[in-house]
Amino acid sequence: MNIRLDIEYDGTEFFGWQVQQNLPTIQGHLEAALQQVVKSRVILVGAGRTDSGVHALGQVANFNLDSPGRIEPWRWKLVLNSMLPPTIRIVDSRAVPNDFHAQKNALSKIYEYRVLNQPCASALDRRVYFCPRPMDWDAIRRALPHFIGTKDFRSFKGAKADVVTTVRTVTRFELIEDMSRRGLYVFQVEGSGFLKQMVRTMVGTVMDVGKGLRKPEDMVDIIRARNRMAAGRTMPASGLCLVSIKYQ
Amino acid sequence: MNIRLDIEYDGTEFFGWQVQQNLPTIQGHLEAALQQVVKSRVILVGAGRTDSGVHALGQVANFNLDSPGRIEPWRWKLVLNSMLPPTIRIVDSRAVPNDFHAQKNALSKIYEYRVLNQPCASALDRRVYFCPRPMDWDAIRRALPHFIGTKDFRSFKGAKADVVTTVRTVTRFELIEDMSRRGLYVFQVEGSGFLKQMVRTMVGTVMDVGKGLRKPEDMVDIIRARNRMAAGRTMPASGLCLVSIKYQ
Repeated sequence: MNIRLDIEYDGTEFFGWQVQQNLPTIQGHLEAALQQVVKSRVILVGAGRTDSGVHALGQVANFNLDSPGRIEPWRWKLVLNSMLPPTIRIVDSRAVPNDFHAQKNALSKIYEYRVLNQPCASALDRRVYFCPRPMDWDAIRRALPHFIGTKDFRSFKGAKADVVTTVRTVTRFELIEDMSRRGLYVFQVEGSGFLKQMVRTMVGTVMDVGKGLRKPEDMVDIIRARNRMAAGRTMPASGLCLVSIKYQ
Repeated sequence: MNIRLDIEYDGTEFFGWQVQQNLPTIQGHLEAALQQVVKSRVILVGAGRTDSGVHALGQVANFNLDSPGRIEPWRWKLVLNSMLPPTIRIVDSRAVPNDFHAQKNALSKIYEYRVLNQPCASALDRRVYFCPRPMDWDAIRRALPHFIGTKDFRSFKGAKADVVTTVRTVTRFELIEDMSRRGLYVFQVEGSGFLKQMVRTMVGTVMDVGKGLRKPEDMVDIIRARNRMAAGRTMPASGLCLVSIKYQ
């Protein structure tokens, strides 16, 4: 039986999604809980390997059980939640066709990067990057369309990431002013897949436009450079959240 | 010089606003920080005494300094934030007329009670009450208008609270479905002032309507009873937040 999990987590205290020896990770906590229930090693496939400190509202993962099992699919969320730290919650669990693969079947991923642009940080919202200096948000908005399309995003790839190709497709890159809080700006990015630190570096580069250090049209040359040195800084993880994964 | 502070806090780890011997409170942290700067005892007047575990986005307080002081009013937020825990943030600081009194001059207070109605709790949102059972939100909505007006709210007063009168004016009690998250329902209450635990007990009583235990029109008799036993339970503090205070 193939079980799909929809997972929410506060990434602050974790060393990212992927299992690492002796470090707390989300996959590590989940596989340990599964192993305790099933009494044998269970491999969990996650849709996106979020980095250290990155949050998720809609991470998706799946695992296969040889036997049909004593636990009904919808009950897995209750079983796992009773064993997990409160900063990891299984929002949904259900049976899916045997060929469902959380990573390979994903059509697109939606990330949000949230910036709180006000003089002081927030005491209540842990899912933001706090930016006290005034920003030209209209200029930033004009920089975003340059990223849309199938392009070589090598300029935005984290140094340590080994990949076959650095070509990716970005279908949406928008800036939304969240009216629930003054000064809260949300970047929404959708694409078939992203390189390591790509979203955070895209946001770091367009934030330079907001500071007046670059022009919106500079994005063309930065992308064309295929060189990490051409782009801006990688934004801190706290503002990034994997919002949802789209499947067929 | 009279300084006004606008304060945000995550109430989870504090024993409420008001100073208590040997317990961490918001007022306690603020007065300790002020005393360290000014080198003498400073009394801080808060607009609303939030209970243990209750949050604030827009608490207001003020303090008087005999001398004009070395610190410009707008700088107080930076000075205090550098000394406070990250779960207490001064959002704004400014000079106000000498007769400004954060509590006595308040015209009305707006509170929110946030309920997350889904099968599983949230990993990211600490400012909600999590309610897994299905609720009849339309019935709840029909119960709310019964609370509007100047009434004796004794049925909703916490046992330990000594007050001169239990008559209060509620000008707004609404239920909003927050579209930023599926299953997130927000009660918004506005009034000239509230009795201890009054908002949480009002919400606890209308939640009984959502469970089918009471009818919307039962609110009339519950208010008329002027007896705490007639009302529903006091909801947990985690969902309650002091959103803003209105002044002339």
